[in-house]
Amino acid sequence: MRAEEAAPAAGPPLASIDELVARLLERQPRAVGRAISLVEDGGEEQRRLVGAIYRRTGRARVVGVTGPPGAGKSTLVDRLARRLRERGETVGILAVDPTSPFSGGAILGDRIRMQSLYTDPGVFIRSMATRGAMGGLARSTRDAVDVLDAAGFDWVLVETVGVGQDEVDVVRSVDTVVLVTLPGLGDDIQAIKAGIMEIADVFVINKADREGAERTARDLEVALQLQEEEAGERWRPPIKQTVANVGQGVEEVLAEVERHRAWLEQSGELATRRRSQLRLRVEAILKDRVLAAADRRVGLEREIERAFAAREDPYRVAEAILAGVLRRGGEAGEGA
Amino acid sequence: MRAEEAAPAAGPPLASIDELVARLLERQPRAVGRAISLVEDGGEEQRRLVGAIYRRTGRARVVGVTGPPGAGKSTLVDRLARRLRERGETVGILAVDPTSPFSGGAILGDRIRMQSLYTDPGVFIRSMATRGAMGGLARSTRDAVDVLDAAGFDWVLVETVGVGQDEVDVVRSVDTVVLVTLPGLGDDIQAIKAGIMEIADVFVINKADREGAERTARDLEVALQLQEEEAGERWRPPIKQTVANVGQGVEEVLAEVERHRAWLEQSGELATRRRSQLRLRVEAILKDRVLAAADRRVGLEREIERAFAAREDPYRVAEAILAGVLRRGGEAGEGA
Repeated sequence: MRAEEAAPAAGPPLASIDELVARLLERQPRAVGRAISLVEDGGEEQRRLVGAIYRRTGRARVVGVTGPPGAGKSTLVDRLARRLRERGETVGILAVDPTSPFSGGAILGDRIRMQSLYTDPGVFIRSMATRGAMGGLARSTRDAVDVLDAAGFDWVLVETVGVGQDEVDVVRSVDTVVLVTLPGLGDDIQAIKAGIMEIADVFVINKADREGAERTARDLEVALQLQEEEAGERWRPPIKQTVANVGQGVEEVLAEVERHRAWLEQSGELATRRRSQLRLRVEAILKDRVLAAADRRVGLEREIERAFAAREDPYRVAEAILAGVLRRGGEAGEGA
Repeated sequence: MRAEEAAPAAGPPLASIDELVARLLERQPRAVGRAISLVEDGGEEQRRLVGAIYRRTGRARVVGVTGPPGAGKSTLVDRLARRLRERGETVGILAVDPTSPFSGGAILGDRIRMQSLYTDPGVFIRSMATRGAMGGLARSTRDAVDVLDAAGFDWVLVETVGVGQDEVDVVRSVDTVVLVTLPGLGDDIQAIKAGIMEIADVFVINKADREGAERTARDLEVALQLQEEEAGERWRPPIKQTVANVGQGVEEVLAEVERHRAWLEQSGELATRRRSQLRLRVEAILKDRVLAAADRRVGLEREIERAFAAREDPYRVAEAILAGVLRRGGEAGEGA
């Protein structure tokens, strides 16, 4: 059975969140899939689920693999997963699709994964896609990482194209960020991805058998040196070359990921990152809640229509809405 | 005198917001610069200022010019501004610098503007940079557009590299989006920028005297056709080729911008866009306010530290904070 296909409401109905959690903790693929669907849907059950499993999380090594379409992220992730399986470790993979319907095709195009991974019970693969609400993808991906972590997967690999705020938020919620790039992406391109470059812990130049790999490596070196002058003495991101589709260099990338993990623990940076991840999550939830509360109390769309017609300035409108929400504060906690 | 240099606290002190507004409405460069500094700083005065000028806004044509570093955005903006000045129209230019300190250099590198623009009282040029707070750049840029609009500039040109959520938010707050690209940016690159592509109203392939311009134009055509299938019958973004540094094609770009504006008005899309811009602004302010209120009431950082140590899940933490804010609702409006 393929783990991924088991996700939608297959099997007997689950009596309760408690039962789901119990099965999840046994790493039953069906329960894992069910739990991820639940966090994708959002709402009260999702919150109860995360509440129930949260204390079981924090053990997994959470690694983000990001980079442009066509860089070979999926292939690298598959190779890393296979290597980890050979060592007897279990792997959860979340493939985060971009919010953009337009670029969707480009990403889905490389979703041709190793068949062997799908049939391995030590591997769970799931695609995460947008389900409407803004910020929803980052939220549900973080929750899904919790699900896989609580289910006892040793590793959680999160693959994302790393464009847009949602995905940058996704990348910010992992412990180690691997940025996959290609030979020959010019200076313009490096500059474009600057936002992502700054949070990369390990650089991989994939398809390094192509012309220009050495040059790209040198360009990256220079870019990183500029960055370091600001960053001071911290982790120095290594640059590795791979040909992932034949497995070349994959072991070395894994070694760097583990070296980074060791550094995170020794330096105290792991706790710092996880605390800042908690803060990001809490802030995102707070923002969602206040908008939901505003919508429930005031009717956001109608209020905007009215304010637009009256030519009221945005600060006045926001303050009026917030005052309305706060006045009825007592009720505002429920059912957001 | 250069308008830009006049911005920081030069000249006699302004007695009040009212006085500033009065001078601003006369388009005194010093007052315009002062007002933009004020909205950059945020806080109570900035809110009063926006409140005072908001009803004077809505007249300017607000055009965003976005694209990767090196595409020639500044040159195109300068050429457009010069062309508009020849027609006797006034132009405000906001050059939005990316939040990333790392890519800063790349952008500032092309900030070599036509000297003639700086000495022209019908032109006001200002660089907008991040001032710390998240989301601050988008907020202050929108407010600065209001300032220039209220000051009576016929056009406001907003130039931004279009990377990251802040800048996408900036781009979402203009009426017409011009995306500037270069010949030879490959398929990978087009896919990367998909988020921006979807909101572009006019495409410009600059440096079209370079090899590959026709091919890039064809690639864009294909990409746009894919997009149109989803978008249905709406505005069909034109693709123009320019060599901006010698002025070639600039007139045609301007014509397309004006054609788009006419379409916006005829189709009713202008009102739709501006209403959705108001909503985006209101939502952003609401989010900022609730975080500020939470910080004031609960002490966000301390609460996160406590929750992290107690291993509380983010939903529980967010709800406890929100409940705390709402309980003291009456006071929460002040001094955010």
